[in-house]
Amino acid sequence: MQSQGKGRLYVVGTGPGSPDLLTLRAKKALEDSDYIIGHQRYVKLIEDIKTDAEIITSTMGREVERVKLAFELSKENIVSLISGGDPGIYGMSGLVSEFLYEGEEAEVEFVPGISAFSIANGILGSPISNDFAVVSLSDLLLPWEEIKKRLECALLGDFVIAIYNPSSRKRRGRFDEAVEIINKYRDGCFVGIVKNASREGEEHIICKCEELERYSEFVDMSTVLIVGNSKTKFNGKIMFTPRGYKI
Amino acid sequence: MQSQGKGRLYVVGTGPGSPDLLTLRAKKALEDSDYIIGHQRYVKLIEDIKTDAEIITSTMGREVERVKLAFELSKENIVSLISGGDPGIYGMSGLVSEFLYEGEEAEVEFVPGISAFSIANGILGSPISNDFAVVSLSDLLLPWEEIKKRLECALLGDFVIAIYNPSSRKRRGRFDEAVEIINKYRDGCFVGIVKNASREGEEHIICKCEELERYSEFVDMSTVLIVGNSKTKFNGKIMFTPRGYKI
Repeated sequence: MQSQGKGRLYVVGTGPGSPDLLTLRAKKALEDSDYIIGHQRYVKLIEDIKTDAEIITSTMGREVERVKLAFELSKENIVSLISGGDPGIYGMSGLVSEFLYEGEEAEVEFVPGISAFSIANGILGSPISNDFAVVSLSDLLLPWEEIKKRLECALLGDFVIAIYNPSSRKRRGRFDEAVEIINKYRDGCFVGIVKNASREGEEHIICKCEELERYSEFVDMSTVLIVGNSKTKFNGKIMFTPRGYKI
Repeated sequence: MQSQGKGRLYVVGTGPGSPDLLTLRAKKALEDSDYIIGHQRYVKLIEDIKTDAEIITSTMGREVERVKLAFELSKENIVSLISGGDPGIYGMSGLVSEFLYEGEEAEVEFVPGISAFSIANGILGSPISNDFAVVSLSDLLLPWEEIKKRLECALLGDFVIAIYNPSSRKRRGRFDEAVEIINKYRDGCFVGIVKNASREGEEHIICKCEELERYSEFVDMSTVLIVGNSKTKFNGKIMFTPRGYKI
């Protein structure tokens, strides 16, 4: 053990997939750790990082257990709790903060990561460019009515919208319902669909919003959609939203 | 010159300030470059990176000129055009994409970066956690009415909202107007104000939205606000929005 009574808990974003999208700070946190705790999928992404840390993997749905273990071990050790993408966006920061709020004590540092929307944006061109909203269609932790309302408000505000967790086998109907809502506001607008961004099997499609229903079978939990707004352009190659400069 | 007729243009996010928040991919792009082009403020952030590249700095408002030069040099050289934060969020990606859309040719790769909202979120705790919107109050390139409408829609949708460019000396009145709008929807809600995130002079304040007007003189172009939603909590130490897990 490198640390004796000098525990520390890093909540580390591993980025969207490719190991070179880690930040230097995240890499150092992993190298310095006595324990690395995470979902097996994200642990796999960082297996090339050289570290003497003991790796503890677990599976989906065991987030609370993982955070409790991370706090426990961090009393005496340097622990990295890893989170795909950015831990602050549908990641582990929320849960760690909730434990701190409830009185758990530890020296915690949040280490940000590249979230999927950011790499997807660069793959498509630059559909984001300006103001944007990020919405997850997963209703595991939130009521579906709330998600629909948020989506509608983002559409109404002409936000470019990054959509996370658009579909899973269990809730295919949710995606179709979302597509219907999108088409109420974005008829004729462009949308980019990016699957496995920066990972093996990366592919993307750019189409009109009214063609989205065709891709109901294509989208899955590893897919991010970027719904362009009324100003977003596409010429068959590059999808982008102008910044407003005179060129 | 490392490259002869093998030009390439990297559009590189330098992150919010601290050099260790660069990604490994961004660091490599800078190291491999023959030229690094950027605003003097962002060039300064990466001065510790070891590179033989010739550095070309310019000032605010010369974005179009900088992009033209980057395309020109990238015909025969490896060029990094740098952008603070993430080039896809109010950065250089939009303008580079516009040139590509208009027929400019180059081998371009967008290298994402950590945007200010992400590090600000970790400094405050985890106010974002779930769905969020990002809005800039700068009306240099967009009409103010459009910005106000977007802000209102994000508030209506109960989005956590990251506000960029909240104020500058020239448009102090815009901030006061935005605060008024925020208070129509978020009375009693918490807001985090983070100045110089991950840079020298970093400081932050967490208060109620109705206290925001007090900080009209404090906020500037180096400040990001994170406006919590109806579920965001604060106990004097940590500001966070629950993910929805049972703990």
